[in-house]
Amino acid sequence: MFEQLGLIGCGLMGGSFALALKRAGLVKRVVGYSKSPSTTERARAMGVIDVEAPSALLAVSGADIVLLAVPVSATEASLKAIRHLITGSMLIMDVGSTKRDVVDAARRVLRDHLGSFVPCHPIAGKEVSGVEHSDPDLYTGKQVILTPIERTQVNHLKSATALWEALGCKVTQMSPESHDAAFAAVSHLPHLIAFALMNGITGQANGKDFLSLAGPGFRDFTRIAASDPKMWRDVLLANRHELLDQAKVFQQAMGQFEQAMLTGNLEALEKLIDSASQARANWKMVQKK
Amino acid sequence: MFEQLGLIGCGLMGGSFALALKRAGLVKRVVGYSKSPSTTERARAMGVIDVEAPSALLAVSGADIVLLAVPVSATEASLKAIRHLITGSMLIMDVGSTKRDVVDAARRVLRDHLGSFVPCHPIAGKEVSGVEHSDPDLYTGKQVILTPIERTQVNHLKSATALWEALGCKVTQMSPESHDAAFAAVSHLPHLIAFALMNGITGQANGKDFLSLAGPGFRDFTRIAASDPKMWRDVLLANRHELLDQAKVFQQAMGQFEQAMLTGNLEALEKLIDSASQARANWKMVQKK
Repeated sequence: MFEQLGLIGCGLMGGSFALALKRAGLVKRVVGYSKSPSTTERARAMGVIDVEAPSALLAVSGADIVLLAVPVSATEASLKAIRHLITGSMLIMDVGSTKRDVVDAARRVLRDHLGSFVPCHPIAGKEVSGVEHSDPDLYTGKQVILTPIERTQVNHLKSATALWEALGCKVTQMSPESHDAAFAAVSHLPHLIAFALMNGITGQANGKDFLSLAGPGFRDFTRIAASDPKMWRDVLLANRHELLDQAKVFQQAMGQFEQAMLTGNLEALEKLIDSASQARANWKMVQKK
Repeated sequence: MFEQLGLIGCGLMGGSFALALKRAGLVKRVVGYSKSPSTTERARAMGVIDVEAPSALLAVSGADIVLLAVPVSATEASLKAIRHLITGSMLIMDVGSTKRDVVDAARRVLRDHLGSFVPCHPIAGKEVSGVEHSDPDLYTGKQVILTPIERTQVNHLKSATALWEALGCKVTQMSPESHDAAFAAVSHLPHLIAFALMNGITGQANGKDFLSLAGPGFRDFTRIAASDPKMWRDVLLANRHELLDQAKVFQQAMGQFEQAMLTGNLEALEKLIDSASQARANWKMVQKK
């Protein structure tokens, strides 16, 4: 049970976290700050936060838990803004989709208080952003990856784990590096592809006609293309090395298909599809029951 | 209202069509044939068909409507098998995902009876195949594209249109060529990409670990990768020219993202994502209300 949550960033992720924490009775008071005052105001009007803070620093004052829920590129600036009020007993977490850059920023900024920071990535989201879409169930049943480093304090790591578990999440630990490699493959690359596919279609003279014919397969395949541009610009850039590597692997796999099509190799083509089809049919999303 | 449906291919598409027609009271009797006798038997046991035919030819005998619901590569052989019992008053349709190859096969085989054939593509499907997944609602509210050619008889075109509309479908007409170009972009390419993405991941040493971390975005993006290998092998091959063209367009769009990432061009990257995100947010699947 926490006394006060300092919420830096009152968007979809931060707002949903505050609502979930309140509903679970895990926090008494939420003090929130957003870059845009109108967002902070809306968050208070909606009951997502209890008190509006005029600055990130003041949102942290008196908190025993702090959540950074800002685009990953804003992590370093946010940590700088709050570092003078961070105490050793404060649990600080983030929700960024990339972890190496976040951990690097924390190392640069937090120094003596680096041990209070537990880097988190909840595998949850929506294709809509903003506090108005906050949902206390956003995290329920989802995976949360913690990427502690050597200086992360065990007590904070334990609190973070217990907190996410209390919200109904399945908590896993891995290194920031393994995290970024894995998510380049299963999240960042699919987003990149979905963005590129949309642009490829709309850039054609008949693009509009094509789109009017698209069905349910297209709908699900491109759902993630509607994601927030600012957030994803940051993610693609923060993890570009791993992502470009994964894009190469993907292009090689595309090349195998193209080769089989060009040569009319029915057998090879079926084998390639069969292996993909089986892998997908056997895959199951890890979820907390 | 039809007297007798001759169903060639009692899989998901054919079985669902028979069930929908029966439920709507549009056919009195369904005579079915599948390459595998056990499938035909199951179709009868399930009430999808009323009579098992020992051959495609006998399934057509006495029918006033025939549906070919076989992989597109089997279209020509199926038409050859039935052509001796085709009459001028019979409406013949298919449900293939590609249309140029189907129309070419019909031209080669049907000759005098080419006018009876109305090429159809209902934009509906599931990632499971087989008669056991037949669903009378599979086509409800979906688009159906008819691709008549110059010799298609107007009376048959009208019957086909009325029939699909009676099943709750939105019917559109276009040329086989335009159809294949459009579906290369919005259906075949997404399938190809989803297959290649799965193979790219599973081919890596850490592929299994990567997959265990994938979330809802991945789930929806790769849903179509679980599609039927034999059917999709045929589709990718039948439409390979258009598909390879669309793959090039896609790769150029990917190249723009990669360029922006490599040069760290934040602004360009955001612009690229923004255009994709807006296009997807503004897109709506055409559906019969």
